[in-house]
Amino acid sequence: MIKTCIIGASGYAGAELSALVHRHSQFELAALYVSTNSADAGKSLGTIHPQFFNTIDLPLLPIDEDNLSALSESFDLIFLATPHEASHKWMNELCGKKAVIMDLSGAFRIKDKHKFAEYYGFEHHADKLLADAVYGLADWHQEQISNANLVAVPGCYPTASLTALKPLQQNALIDSTHFPIINAVSGVSGAGRKASLNSSFTEVSLQAYGVLGHRHQPEIADYLGTDVIFTPHLGNFKRGILATITVKTAANVSEQQITDAFQQAYQGNPIVRLRNSWPKIDDVAGTPYCDLFWKLDPKTGYLVVVSAIDNLLKGAASQAIQCANLRFGFESHMGLVN
Amino acid sequence: MIKTCIIGASGYAGAELSALVHRHSQFELAALYVSTNSADAGKSLGTIHPQFFNTIDLPLLPIDEDNLSALSESFDLIFLATPHEASHKWMNELCGKKAVIMDLSGAFRIKDKHKFAEYYGFEHHADKLLADAVYGLADWHQEQISNANLVAVPGCYPTASLTALKPLQQNALIDSTHFPIINAVSGVSGAGRKASLNSSFTEVSLQAYGVLGHRHQPEIADYLGTDVIFTPHLGNFKRGILATITVKTAANVSEQQITDAFQQAYQGNPIVRLRNSWPKIDDVAGTPYCDLFWKLDPKTGYLVVVSAIDNLLKGAASQAIQCANLRFGFESHMGLVN
Amino acid sequence: MIKTCIIGASGYAGAELSALVHRHSQFELAALYVSTNSADAGKSLGTIHPQFFNTIDLPLLPIDEDNLSALSESFDLIFLATPHEASHKWMNELCGKKAVIMDLSGAFRIKDKHKFAEYYGFEHHADKLLADAVYGLADWHQEQISNANLVAVPGCYPTASLTALKPLQQNALIDSTHFPIINAVSGVSGAGRKASLNSSFTEVSLQAYGVLGHRHQPEIADYLGTDVIFTPHLGNFKRGILATITVKTAANVSEQQITDAFQQAYQGNPIVRLRNSWPKIDDVAGTPYCDLFWKLDPKTGYLVVVSAIDNLLKGAASQAIQCANLRFGFESHMGLVN
Amino acid sequence: MIKTCIIGASGYAGAELSALVHRHSQFELAALYVSTNSADAGKSLGTIHPQFFNTIDLPLLPIDEDNLSALSESFDLIFLATPHEASHKWMNELCGKKAVIMDLSGAFRIKDKHKFAEYYGFEHHADKLLADAVYGLADWHQEQISNANLVAVPGCYPTASLTALKPLQQNALIDSTHFPIINAVSGVSGAGRKASLNSSFTEVSLQAYGVLGHRHQPEIADYLGTDVIFTPHLGNFKRGILATITVKTAANVSEQQITDAFQQAYQGNPIVRLRNSWPKIDDVAGTPYCDLFWKLDPKTGYLVVVSAIDNLLKGAASQAIQCANLRFGFESHMGLVN
Repeated sequence: MIKTCIIGASGYAGAELSALVHRHSQFELAALYVSTNSADAGKSLGTIHPQFFNTIDLPLLPIDEDNLSALSESFDLIFLATPHEASHKWMNELCGKKAVIMDLSGAFRIKDKHKFAEYYGFEHHADKLLADAVYGLADWHQEQISNANLVAVPGCYPTASLTALKPLQQNALIDSTHFPIINAVSGVSGAGRKASLNSSFTEVSLQAYGVLGHRHQPEIADYLGTDVIFTPHLGNFKRGILATITVKTAANVSEQQITDAFQQAYQGNPIVRLRNSWPKIDDVAGTPYCDLFWKLDPKTGYLVVVSAIDNLLKGAASQAIQCANLRFGFESHMGLVN
Repeated sequence: MIKTCIIGASGYAGAELSALVHRHSQFELAALYVSTNSADAGKSLGTIHPQFFNTIDLPLLPIDEDNLSALSESFDLIFLATPHEASHKWMNELCGKKAVIMDLSGAFRIKDKHKFAEYYGFEHHADKLLADAVYGLADWHQEQISNANLVAVPGCYPTASLTALKPLQQNALIDSTHFPIINAVSGVSGAGRKASLNSSFTEVSLQAYGVLGHRHQPEIADYLGTDVIFTPHLGNFKRGILATITVKTAANVSEQQITDAFQQAYQGNPIVRLRNSWPKIDDVAGTPYCDLFWKLDPKTGYLVVVSAIDNLLKGAASQAIQCANLRFGFESHMGLVN
Repeated sequence: MIKTCIIGASGYAGAELSALVHRHSQFELAALYVSTNSADAGKSLGTIHPQFFNTIDLPLLPIDEDNLSALSESFDLIFLATPHEASHKWMNELCGKKAVIMDLSGAFRIKDKHKFAEYYGFEHHADKLLADAVYGLADWHQEQISNANLVAVPGCYPTASLTALKPLQQNALIDSTHFPIINAVSGVSGAGRKASLNSSFTEVSLQAYGVLGHRHQPEIADYLGTDVIFTPHLGNFKRGILATITVKTAANVSEQQITDAFQQAYQGNPIVRLRNSWPKIDDVAGTPYCDLFWKLDPKTGYLVVVSAIDNLLKGAASQAIQCANLRFGFESHMGLVN
Repeated sequence: MIKTCIIGASGYAGAELSALVHRHSQFELAALYVSTNSADAGKSLGTIHPQFFNTIDLPLLPIDEDNLSALSESFDLIFLATPHEASHKWMNELCGKKAVIMDLSGAFRIKDKHKFAEYYGFEHHADKLLADAVYGLADWHQEQISNANLVAVPGCYPTASLTALKPLQQNALIDSTHFPIINAVSGVSGAGRKASLNSSFTEVSLQAYGVLGHRHQPEIADYLGTDVIFTPHLGNFKRGILATITVKTAANVSEQQITDAFQQAYQGNPIVRLRNSWPKIDDVAGTPYCDLFWKLDPKTGYLVVVSAIDNLLKGAASQAIQCANLRFGFESHMGLVN
């Protein structure tokens, strides 16, 4: 059994990770941690997330910088479901010891330090780790992930977007003079578990935000290899992302070429499902799947692709499990699909 | 025109009051105030509540204890949509001047100081005002309200409950050995406009709270004249209250007696609607109505009454307007129903 | 008073129309009609839409082809909130008599009969009326509407889209080699008041539909004067539309030019509100407004415009009232904004 | 492996059963059936319930009376997630063969034929089977269930209510002169998967229904052993039931006696969770648990108990699995909790 802990288990992604590790046949959920500053330190997981009451009811142990190094020696696998700043600050202590690190924060996703500072609001000081970190887009970077000691698990919007766009980009099916237009709607859990007027029940109502300036835009562009227009929205539901992507295809691209590109990329992959109808959020909520469906207008060459994921699972926790599976030599979907 | 201001206009009830005063033919919406401590001071109403953008877009002027007295001399009518503590602390400065005060907080509803301290967590120091304050249950206390200078507008749950129960109690139709059982579900706006984990979109899900200890229980009991069991719940909707009330009727009470009691109480009242089917929240959301429907089981003598209101309107702002109408000699429903 | 009736008053748009006509100072709500086939015939409006119980509680009179002609002689103004087929079939009897007709269906919006048949599934047989009908985009076609006897009130998606795009198109700010990309999410009331598995509470979840083939696409293109990609979605809310529109601007277009275009189009118009933040559905739900906000990325020349309306009001009933106001010589927003 | 089929797999409870049987280590999901009349006959489960696309994607085979008998010989275990009328009509053919039958309909729950006809609207003609059927309240009737060949799995409201009330009734803690008052709110999935105006998204809003006449009232009373007042409500959420139960306790009942009664009934039972805070719907949605919490007012002797379940799982499918587990000699929670 691979001895595993989760740091930042009190948040929504941390809670999902706890459940996935708990039911995984090869990973042992050995401990849960939260920052010593957290109001949740000392409570049990089931107190904060009552769906786990009496079942995955481990205590949330306090952790700070002083015990990180020892921690990293005593576990095989550490999931970090922590704020960007915490992951950035703690990574030097955590890396290079025994444990493999799966970081669900944004601290190690953008390789360009200038761009990082622009979008995250603080300077990156871990050059070597930033260079070495592998981007954990599990259905595309299997080989790199299987050798990584630090995996930067992708954000929720990039996962939905890249899964839809990479087959097209890899096959040169996108007209390079038109940016792909990504419109995505996320459930409120994407904002994290915290008190905030913006995410209060009475205030939430479908709304665009971060327009032309969201930090997931460069992440998508970097790993896609071309620029995009990305407009995120907050939706009035708890979990899930629906991304509707409009692409001008390159000259003379046929429906068959598009179908071939998707099938070649995902045939036999139990996680990415090539649907036969437009996916809705509820088709994937609570699941590790990314559902895709598309339609081409042959007259104009415009293509619409819809991608649906659970933001807390395929957009966070279950993709982190895929990465951990790959790193430890298991099938990517182990413990996720049966 | 009756010169009117609203103190505490940044909250949900304050916003509704602004709209109602704005469209009232006899009240002039002259100014909006918030506490100097409020982060909203200096902003416009339309910035905080964008439904009013460009329309009722008055500034939220800062107010503190020093200018209360002058304020009360310069307005005819002041609505207080403030926290209990603020209403309690400020009332001495506000009362006894020119303005009539409509207080939407709980500071002057419970006459017994010991009970007040038990349920509100602080001592009441305004004995005279507390004794003189009139409870603004507008469909029942018309005469007292029309002579009051300080009206304690009822809470949302008590309004829904008392409107349903008072006709029964007044006609001695309730078996005095069984407490009426009130189960009520409120929309999240009842918790006010504030950042709080409990009212965040991701956390809200139908749940009981304040069981056997909510401060609206003594308010209901006092103004009904008999004890009740009151169990409030938070529901996953923005506004409205549905109260389902189970009553053991006194011996031999007939359906006709119950119907007579309700008709006698509310016939011709355009605000309380005696329905012919079970009301739902959406029937009254955004309206000043209290909808009632009931059914008696003649075999067992148990009666179920359902009462539905908009918690921010009949449970706050529109009832305050009813009170102001009565005080200034207008019909109770002026500006509310046309 | 202008004697007014509504045909099709049992649906959601019909109900909204009833409320707006009822409170309008110059229109008299004289009668409500439904098809003789309707299960609602003979019921009262308040039975079907209990928010109107006891208030706008007119009977829903049955109507069929035989009495249309007489009807049109006895009213000054008729609103048709009927299915496309009914409007198409009945219009010959209704037009050319005394009444001005406001048709909220899609029967007279698309001028090209071939395109109409393609998108509506039946042949158009009223050539003359189709040619004469005026498209009721109230904030743009004031003059034509003020002389029309048959107004085809626009669909909800086209209203949201055209209000956002026409100022750009009129000022040649759109790059003609890139289609504007419209992603819009509608509340479920857009599907009408009917039993359907797709719009049942348990099935609704954010989902695209009608992709690259929705009948509002040609309507938008025709009245905009350029082609668009339009992707509608069903959202898990009752009312409202949020349209997020991505436009590649023409070379060297500046922010100022865009602002000027919107201000020139809508300055002083109380219905179209140029916001200073991203509108959300709840800002316009229950209102006659169209809220707009936008952002340009000067580096890439892409512009994102968000447009929000209430689909039943600005997207149906309140825009029909605007048209009626214009036709009878009143200010466009009379009875809508005060 | 126990060869298992599900009849009525196209509905919501049938879909949940499919998932539970699929992942159960001892049950083999061998076939899914729907009525030959069903529009879903011939489709795959994943077409109708896309969460199962590509995973539990069995065809929905048509079944009618002619092949029931053969069916019952070829399976070990049959789940019936069918309408009451179908279960009633088909049971003679199904019973007495090889298969054990778990009936999720209401056809075999009420033993009194007169009461059955009153509440179900048709006469019961299977006297012997009705007498022999065992009521599948899994946490209470283990022994009977383990010997049954026909189990009438309880309704969702009775499961929530009886789990809360039986420990009190068994220990004589309820004042027999006051009926327990059950107020319960169910998610819309309780109404089944079908087109209906009442369960359309636009119409659903918290509302009481079936007041003093719902067919689950006699079911609760029969298996509790005392009469109750039961008021069901439809809530604006997809799944889950929250039952708030008010009980007048017998004279001098202490908090400790109540706690003892619940602990004695459920200590060590992983399905019924005695919580330390008020459960909400989301704590149990998607789970097999019944969560209980309570509070006594020692001054008045009134007790409030809240019970929360997932109506499709503990209120249908997972309780049916518990029954099947018991019948085949496994632990009640096998395949449900790990």
